[in-house]
Amino acid sequence: MTPPESDVDVLIIGAGPAGLMLATWLSRLNIRTRIVDKRSTKIMAGQADGFQCRTLEILDSFGIDRVWKESNHMLEVCFWNPDENGVIKRTGRVPDTPQGFSRFTECVLHQGRMERFFLDHLKDDGDTVRVERAILPSSLQINEEKVEDAAAYPITIRLQHLTDEEATPDQGKNIPNGLFRSNLTPDDTEDLIRKASGKEGTEEVVRAKYLVGCDGAHSWTRKQLGFQMEGEHTEIIWGVLDIIPITDFPDIRVRSLIHSASSGSLMVIPREKRVVRLYIQLKEVSEGGGAIDRSKVTPEQILKAAQKIIAPYKLEYEHCGWFTAYQIAQRVSDGFDKFERVFLAGDAVHTHSPKAGQGQNVSLQDSYNLGWKIGLVARGQATREILKTYPTERQQIARDLIAFDQKFSKLFSGRPAKDVSDETGISLEEFRKVFHQGAVFAAGLSVDYGPNILVVKEDEGKIGGVRCKPSLAEKLKIGMRLPSHKVVNQSDSLPVELQKLLPSDGRFRLIVFPGNISKPKLYTRYEKLGEYFSSSTGLVSAYTPEDTPRDSVIEILTVHSAKRLDVELQSLPEAFHPLDKARGWDYWKIYADDESYHEGHGRVYENFGIDRDEGCIVIVRPDGYVATVVAVDNTNSLEAYFARFMIKV
Amino acid sequence: MTPPESDVDVLIIGAGPAGLMLATWLSRLNIRTRIVDKRSTKIMAGQADGFQCRTLEILDSFGIDRVWKESNHMLEVCFWNPDENGVIKRTGRVPDTPQGFSRFTECVLHQGRMERFFLDHLKDDGDTVRVERAILPSSLQINEEKVEDAAAYPITIRLQHLTDEEATPDQGKNIPNGLFRSNLTPDDTEDLIRKASGKEGTEEVVRAKYLVGCDGAHSWTRKQLGFQMEGEHTEIIWGVLDIIPITDFPDIRVRSLIHSASSGSLMVIPREKRVVRLYIQLKEVSEGGGAIDRSKVTPEQILKAAQKIIAPYKLEYEHCGWFTAYQIAQRVSDGFDKFERVFLAGDAVHTHSPKAGQGQNVSLQDSYNLGWKIGLVARGQATREILKTYPTERQQIARDLIAFDQKFSKLFSGRPAKDVSDETGISLEEFRKVFHQGAVFAAGLSVDYGPNILVVKEDEGKIGGVRCKPSLAEKLKIGMRLPSHKVVNQSDSLPVELQKLLPSDGRFRLIVFPGNISKPKLYTRYEKLGEYFSSSTGLVSAYTPEDTPRDSVIEILTVHSAKRLDVELQSLPEAFHPLDKARGWDYWKIYADDESYHEGHGRVYENFGIDRDEGCIVIVRPDGYVATVVAVDNTNSLEAYFARFMIKV
Repeated sequence: MTPPESDVDVLIIGAGPAGLMLATWLSRLNIRTRIVDKRSTKIMAGQADGFQCRTLEILDSFGIDRVWKESNHMLEVCFWNPDENGVIKRTGRVPDTPQGFSRFTECVLHQGRMERFFLDHLKDDGDTVRVERAILPSSLQINEEKVEDAAAYPITIRLQHLTDEEATPDQGKNIPNGLFRSNLTPDDTEDLIRKASGKEGTEEVVRAKYLVGCDGAHSWTRKQLGFQMEGEHTEIIWGVLDIIPITDFPDIRVRSLIHSASSGSLMVIPREKRVVRLYIQLKEVSEGGGAIDRSKVTPEQILKAAQKIIAPYKLEYEHCGWFTAYQIAQRVSDGFDKFERVFLAGDAVHTHSPKAGQGQNVSLQDSYNLGWKIGLVARGQATREILKTYPTERQQIARDLIAFDQKFSKLFSGRPAKDVSDETGISLEEFRKVFHQGAVFAAGLSVDYGPNILVVKEDEGKIGGVRCKPSLAEKLKIGMRLPSHKVVNQSDSLPVELQKLLPSDGRFRLIVFPGNISKPKLYTRYEKLGEYFSSSTGLVSAYTPEDTPRDSVIEILTVHSAKRLDVELQSLPEAFHPLDKARGWDYWKIYADDESYHEGHGRVYENFGIDRDEGCIVIVRPDGYVATVVAVDNTNSLEAYFARFMIKV
Repeated sequence: MTPPESDVDVLIIGAGPAGLMLATWLSRLNIRTRIVDKRSTKIMAGQADGFQCRTLEILDSFGIDRVWKESNHMLEVCFWNPDENGVIKRTGRVPDTPQGFSRFTECVLHQGRMERFFLDHLKDDGDTVRVERAILPSSLQINEEKVEDAAAYPITIRLQHLTDEEATPDQGKNIPNGLFRSNLTPDDTEDLIRKASGKEGTEEVVRAKYLVGCDGAHSWTRKQLGFQMEGEHTEIIWGVLDIIPITDFPDIRVRSLIHSASSGSLMVIPREKRVVRLYIQLKEVSEGGGAIDRSKVTPEQILKAAQKIIAPYKLEYEHCGWFTAYQIAQRVSDGFDKFERVFLAGDAVHTHSPKAGQGQNVSLQDSYNLGWKIGLVARGQATREILKTYPTERQQIARDLIAFDQKFSKLFSGRPAKDVSDETGISLEEFRKVFHQGAVFAAGLSVDYGPNILVVKEDEGKIGGVRCKPSLAEKLKIGMRLPSHKVVNQSDSLPVELQKLLPSDGRFRLIVFPGNISKPKLYTRYEKLGEYFSSSTGLVSAYTPEDTPRDSVIEILTVHSAKRLDVELQSLPEAFHPLDKARGWDYWKIYADDESYHEGHGRVYENFGIDRDEGCIVIVRPDGYVATVVAVDNTNSLEAYFARFMIKV
């Protein structure tokens, strides 16, 4: 029997955080997308739980605020180390997220909730992309001759439909656990393919324009592409317990890093709903080795190890929601894509220790980087060139992540120094220093994409090139995410976070900082810019189909630095607050860098280092990263930037 | 045929804001409740839209945050008046909600959304209370002999089930409008009863402990009780338009109060989803009278009147979502309850002008005041005495509301003064003054319940009386709602709004302000208080059933004024952070008045006028109003307070 055939623009393998984020992007951009997963249910307990500032900003850009609302906000870190008698003592206390990083702070919530929010969001967003469960890919072919033809479907993939029984993993009969997907146990993908293949009616063939493997550390997709994970793994085994602790340890509701004198170390992660997650170094299990079957670690063993570390404090529990065990493996894939047609994201391309709370975040951010690029190409708005920026941008991040994790884990697994003369031990000072240095990275805010077709960091200095002027916004970093500060809506005085004006909807944005437009000279310059944007030969007309709103491809926002009360909205050029007969004037495009009635002054000119008499235009990518900075009157540079990769209508 | 009979603890007539708020309370308190409404659908467009600070605080106490999220936050008021040539000019600009009132500001959202949030909330809260639509009461009997028996069902009421056709009002064939429920058209209740009565299977008999009429300005319940609406109404007709305006008037997205020289006045209320509501004085219609059928006002007529007022600015629209017309009637019912068994709430007991955005708010707050009282009595926790505080507390508020509205409306309907010698006209200065004075009232924050069984404002000075000491928290007003300031959780450093610790769940709360407990003397006093609360003869044991958690009737919270880092949680008395084997220690009861990492310092001792070396205990009612203030060591007064109305287990 011939299996049924169909085609789709994008096929996503794997419905974990990376896959769901990608599906969310593509749904938002109305791209024909399918997402399949070999498991019959979503994660019910355990797995990742840490959310960085940047991840929260990204979720917010999709209007997903439930993580921030439901999670436990983890605000403080305490360091515990042995004193001269080998008894653990609190030796330091710092904020978990340093002040001023973001409008969010690090928070913690069970991964299954995040997946639920994505699923709910997909449903609300038209319900066109649904996760298809109990489906497994079994073969992949790429027609190399067609990969450069944007309209082609060069990928052919066979999908096996599993029975519920086949697709339901044993999550643990008594207490749910993560051993079945831990790196201590072998992967079951090949097994599942073998079991399912050959049965009638269980197979289909899909032709796709793009294929994205978000299929985890054991990625089937990665194996088909022939890429290798490069890096190392350590022999130390860590146990993880999600419990409601009964303890007299005083810092159980803050992130506590406990180094015992000789029983190893433990990290406390306070969670939502009274739960606390403990990461526990398993001394007995790792030393010697053979005695215990590593894939059969029990919560009792893990608790026993924790009790030794946390002594003299007591630690018990009546409720355990989940547990697992793992070995730290720090590896990066040697390839992230093939022909810019098949891509890998998330654990499929990087694995590392979970303790820094990075895994889910970097995975989400991989596909956040990729989604809009595939979307714009699939819609015919951008050339395939921009797809090359995915591997270059994200492979570097993965390498940075591994470097960070190696430092972080080593410190953590290491033995604390006995005194200053103890050179092989890790001193408290060293620990705190590395921990603090890691904070920006850990918050996801150090991501700095290098110069490429989408990011212009220097004046190209040539005719027809982008005259990038970083000095016009000297505190703003091109290549990094646009930080948020409050600005005040001109029409109604509402203070709004700048990032709130950058929803993830696939549009590039020009943020015009025209300076103090109550000065005639600056007003005139701004007026002239408005004329350019209104013209039928300008940038907006070049890329915007006639039958769609003027702001549907490139949106123009204004943040002026005049006093709001000195400016009358109706006297400003219509290009900056366009009139649409059915919807009235657009009152949500012009903002003042001014004091608000109830929420202070955002001081965005000052924070970005923009001169109020000079101004600038900042181009922001659809993912919120700063693409470049040009002068207010330099419309040629705007055209030069978009000419690099955009396709005219 | 005998109609079916059943009983219920509380029957609510009317599922508008007042009825739904009451149903929400009673559902939360697990009281057997039914709520019926004569209409077959909820409000689809129009009606009330203003939300005061206090209403937002109350909604937040039920975990309902969607009004704040979806609404338009209206932050600014502009005054427009005729200049010497009779042309309107902007003459002033002030914040809509003055700074420091609340953590919320006034906002605007279609009433139907509010009703939707209540319905969703009821569903999530166990789905035991559902609105039964197309049901109308037709007769009411009260067995007077049984009204003082708390366990009795003295109320017998007949309900008519309507057909969908009977229950569906004509909301307007082209543009939905409110004329069918406007006070310009007669009520249809009697009509509906007549039509429905006598049909087989359309009737049932319900016996109830309590009946609450939330059935609007034409209240059937009020008529059965024989109460009269007292007050006046004016002849001036106002029109209301919900439109997406196309206008060059610059202040269309702020609350604008426009007095024209001779065409009457207009108020602009910017709404969610680009909509603007306009309140327009209908000069042509009100003068002369007979020429136009008042109940057949058209949007075109209303627009025409608005255009005259707003000239020389242009005003048009393509989209009109709703319109209505009304006459201002300011009236209060001469009775709010009968035998503390049948109660009236909302428009059933007060009607007034909608322009100050008070109606929905005061109505919600009526039943917010009533719900927990009925709930505690129905659960056998409190005596019927507390029910007497409903009419005394809310009748005064209704009278204050009418007095406010008379002032406000008169100013608004009045003619602007031509110059200082124009004594019958209203001067701009006068207008601004009254407007500003009204701000606290309009925010819902001036509510000050007088002394009664629930509110002790003065030292009773007698043995066995409450030794109320207002001076211990001299800036806190007994009888008013507890204002919110941020406090810092002792266990995890999380800053929390004090009001967030007061969810609406039927519990009284003792907020212990023990002062700086890092001082031995104050610590010892706090420790002693803890012993009292733990004891089997103390207050908590007296009112808490043995099989329920210690904090299920009276919750004890602590806000100390020591530096958080100077206090170790585990050294504090267990009474203040009780240990429960299944749930671990309770880490969410002890807070510090201290600096937080990211959200500043709430300074609650300073804001409440509490001495850090003295402290106090504040008793807070289940509705968040301050019941009384006593000394930290005065446990006798705590007992005396609750002995007034609570029933021991």
